[in-house]
Amino acid sequence: MRDGHAYNDDNPIAAFATIPGSGALTLIRCSGKGAIEAASSVFAPDKLKGAPGNSIVHGWIVKDGEKIDEVLVSVFRAPKSYTGEDGLDISCHGGASAGKAVMSALSSAGFRDALPGEFTFRAFVNGKLDLTKAESVMELVSAKTEISRRRAVSRLSGSLQTEIEEIKKLLVQVLSGAEIYLDYSEDEVGADADEDEGKLPYLNIALEALERLKKLSASWQMERIYQEGVTVVIAGRPNAGKSSLFNALLKEDRSIVTEIPGTTRDWIEAWVSVEGIPVRLVDTAGLRESAEAVEKLGVDRSRKLLQEADLVLYLIDGAQGVTAEDRDLISGAGNGRATENIAANSGADSAHNTCNRQLLVWNKADIAPPPAAPPAPAQNFISASAKTGEGLARIYAAISSAIRGQAASLQAASLQATSLQATLQDAPITAAVGTERQKKLVDVAISALEEALALARREEPLDLIAPLLRDAVNSLGEITGEVSTADILEEMFSRFCVGK
Amino acid sequence: MRDGHAYNDDNPIAAFATIPGSGALTLIRCSGKGAIEAASSVFAPDKLKGAPGNSIVHGWIVKDGEKIDEVLVSVFRAPKSYTGEDGLDISCHGGASAGKAVMSALSSAGFRDALPGEFTFRAFVNGKLDLTKAESVMELVSAKTEISRRRAVSRLSGSLQTEIEEIKKLLVQVLSGAEIYLDYSEDEVGADADEDEGKLPYLNIALEALERLKKLSASWQMERIYQEGVTVVIAGRPNAGKSSLFNALLKEDRSIVTEIPGTTRDWIEAWVSVEGIPVRLVDTAGLRESAEAVEKLGVDRSRKLLQEADLVLYLIDGAQGVTAEDRDLISGAGNGRATENIAANSGADSAHNTCNRQLLVWNKADIAPPPAAPPAPAQNFISASAKTGEGLARIYAAISSAIRGQAASLQAASLQATSLQATLQDAPITAAVGTERQKKLVDVAISALEEALALARREEPLDLIAPLLRDAVNSLGEITGEVSTADILEEMFSRFCVGK
Repeated sequence: MRDGHAYNDDNPIAAFATIPGSGALTLIRCSGKGAIEAASSVFAPDKLKGAPGNSIVHGWIVKDGEKIDEVLVSVFRAPKSYTGEDGLDISCHGGASAGKAVMSALSSAGFRDALPGEFTFRAFVNGKLDLTKAESVMELVSAKTEISRRRAVSRLSGSLQTEIEEIKKLLVQVLSGAEIYLDYSEDEVGADADEDEGKLPYLNIALEALERLKKLSASWQMERIYQEGVTVVIAGRPNAGKSSLFNALLKEDRSIVTEIPGTTRDWIEAWVSVEGIPVRLVDTAGLRESAEAVEKLGVDRSRKLLQEADLVLYLIDGAQGVTAEDRDLISGAGNGRATENIAANSGADSAHNTCNRQLLVWNKADIAPPPAAPPAPAQNFISASAKTGEGLARIYAAISSAIRGQAASLQAASLQATSLQATLQDAPITAAVGTERQKKLVDVAISALEEALALARREEPLDLIAPLLRDAVNSLGEITGEVSTADILEEMFSRFCVGK
Repeated sequence: MRDGHAYNDDNPIAAFATIPGSGALTLIRCSGKGAIEAASSVFAPDKLKGAPGNSIVHGWIVKDGEKIDEVLVSVFRAPKSYTGEDGLDISCHGGASAGKAVMSALSSAGFRDALPGEFTFRAFVNGKLDLTKAESVMELVSAKTEISRRRAVSRLSGSLQTEIEEIKKLLVQVLSGAEIYLDYSEDEVGADADEDEGKLPYLNIALEALERLKKLSASWQMERIYQEGVTVVIAGRPNAGKSSLFNALLKEDRSIVTEIPGTTRDWIEAWVSVEGIPVRLVDTAGLRESAEAVEKLGVDRSRKLLQEADLVLYLIDGAQGVTAEDRDLISGAGNGRATENIAANSGADSAHNTCNRQLLVWNKADIAPPPAAPPAPAQNFISASAKTGEGLARIYAAISSAIRGQAASLQAASLQATSLQATLQDAPITAAVGTERQKKLVDVAISALEEALALARREEPLDLIAPLLRDAVNSLGEITGEVSTADILEEMFSRFCVGK
């Protein structure tokens, strides 16, 4: 790890838990063996050392006799803290300088800067949370929409951990059945032993585990979309009203969580929440206009964007109708490949995908009503007016439905016709994987289990089947962190933000 | 006030105390009558209502049975809190969505959004701090450099409040002396009374008060610079090395407090800390280059910047020597007026000012040594090399000395030859005013006191002098908030940030 530190000591660490900026307060988090004593050396009056756990002490951070900042300190005593160690949350004044000065005082008192994710790492090591909860903490911090947040909170509450542990119990039951049988066979080396060798006990239980694992694996399609979002690009000929629609759609959306004071907004692209799906809405017109001098570059970028788009809103200028150029562009835009955000392991038919990748929007419907025979299938054709706001809600609904449709077809491919309903609905939130890491480990378990079942069907010996079952169990153990290595943990926690 | 609310109830209020962003945590501050009971209705388990003051409770924010976020709640009980009311600090997960969802739950529980500065307003109303301390809180939040922070902390510790109260005591002593005399005269209407009428008792005490008030008033010159900073513009012919010097100066500065993770840097201008003075360093080259297509506009903006600059670093291309164009530009740049940041009530001679407004930097000294007879007075001429770093420290020192020189000449004008030393040194920090409001009220007191003293010198009747002394006392009372009106308070606190 950088600075020669690794996640392997319990020395006192400190980090900004909130971004020091223009807020009213800045929160600094401290944890580690001797943290309270260390902080006490730069705190006055001398009330920290005697403070009980879960209490708040008011005073000043002082250094070399100089008052640095007036603060409130929350004191935590092991094991009753986030990390399970002694700890302090120091609430300083906001702005850039007070927090910095306090951090400098803490450094002189023996605290070192925390590594990214180090607090949560310590919490994990001290048994305060399992890996699915630890990862959900990070998920929660980066949740883009209300639904992303709810899904992260569900995992933070333990929904995934519980499901994994239940499935593991099923597999352990199957495995111990097989192992008892093996032990028994070894004891009784006789003629009868071979007869039952290929018969896996608790086969139905193994099948139930497989079904539940597949649902978990399939859940990633939609979870990933809720976390990372999708890209929707607005395309069309000049003057079709792309920028107007872009602005109208931004205005329509009332729920985007990034719309908070202090964040800046890029008017060429913006995140909106479409029925809980974080959508990066891109206005190719804006792109082109901002790069007027380098028109060529603009067009290249637009084309690249269209290819990367999960969905294209193709705008028809209602006043002009569908032109020959439109027809060219429409077929061109539809030919892009679905991106990795959605496709990954695409077994879905590409026709379905292409169909879902483009929505035709007939703009200016207020002055030019759409033709009686629409130029596209009804579910992909929307009549709207960016000017009057007519049809905007329909566009939102169509985006949501197209994205969910794409995810469903990919889920169907991966589930192989298992019921989709549970994972496609927002409520009630069922257990679902929340990270790529978890998904991959579920898939490892599925592969091992499927191989085990295939061997069992061919009535192969149990001593070939049992190790596969053990692999599946271990893979699930890695998800919760029951089975783990230092390398994996460091790799995982280092992706956290500092202060977490 | 907006939304029909004013600073006049003690209903439960809530606000983000940290900017909800990519930090690990978000802090929400709540205060008001019944705040703990209200928060309790969206908190589980049911431990808030019974929690003692200054204790921390762990649990979940819940709404309609759904878990919203896992939080730590700091519970405060009146009067032991920042505001003096019951209050809670809720530490939620960071990111954009968790904090928003918790705020929404609090809103449903009866909290309204806090107005800007409302927490500090309530703290003032409840006698937790005087106005000088309240204002220093805001100063501290926006402190740009370590010295700005230390000066704000000094006021937060009460240095200004103490000084104002001491001066007020002096004036009250003078005033009561005069009033006792007046009372006495009224009682004894006789021939002797008129003789002593014009003699102000405690004249020396009044003069001491005046001296101390003038020092306070003069302190604003430098305090204002520490708070708001100054603009230093780098100018010179093309290829003189403006951008190289700009970048080298940014690199040289190790103490700028805005250089923190999460803030973006504008490479055309940047804040640096020059011996504690926040300096907005502007690279006119960068400006011009970024607006290549509109060259004319770029030149206009550069000219405007030069006029607004508190100080111009004029770069000479050492390889070319001083050209005729340089000579034109140098005299042009020097003719700008000192800005309001420094000048305000400029009684200083403008020759001194012009001289201090420009530093000549001989760049590329590594390949072209400066001439034996420098083209400017030695204190305004620096030989340097942006490439090797030679002379950069001298440029910093010269900027600091020029800015302090400007402030000193303005202070001298306002102090009328009173000793400057105390207010020009950084340490020890003496009492100084921290806001324009305080400065103006000090000046009102000075005017009243000077008029009183002038009348006294002319031996005018005490009943003309006493009201002036009372005006001075009241003006000082307004500084600390002892004397105040709802209008003034609202105007003042509404300039605070939300959550403070």
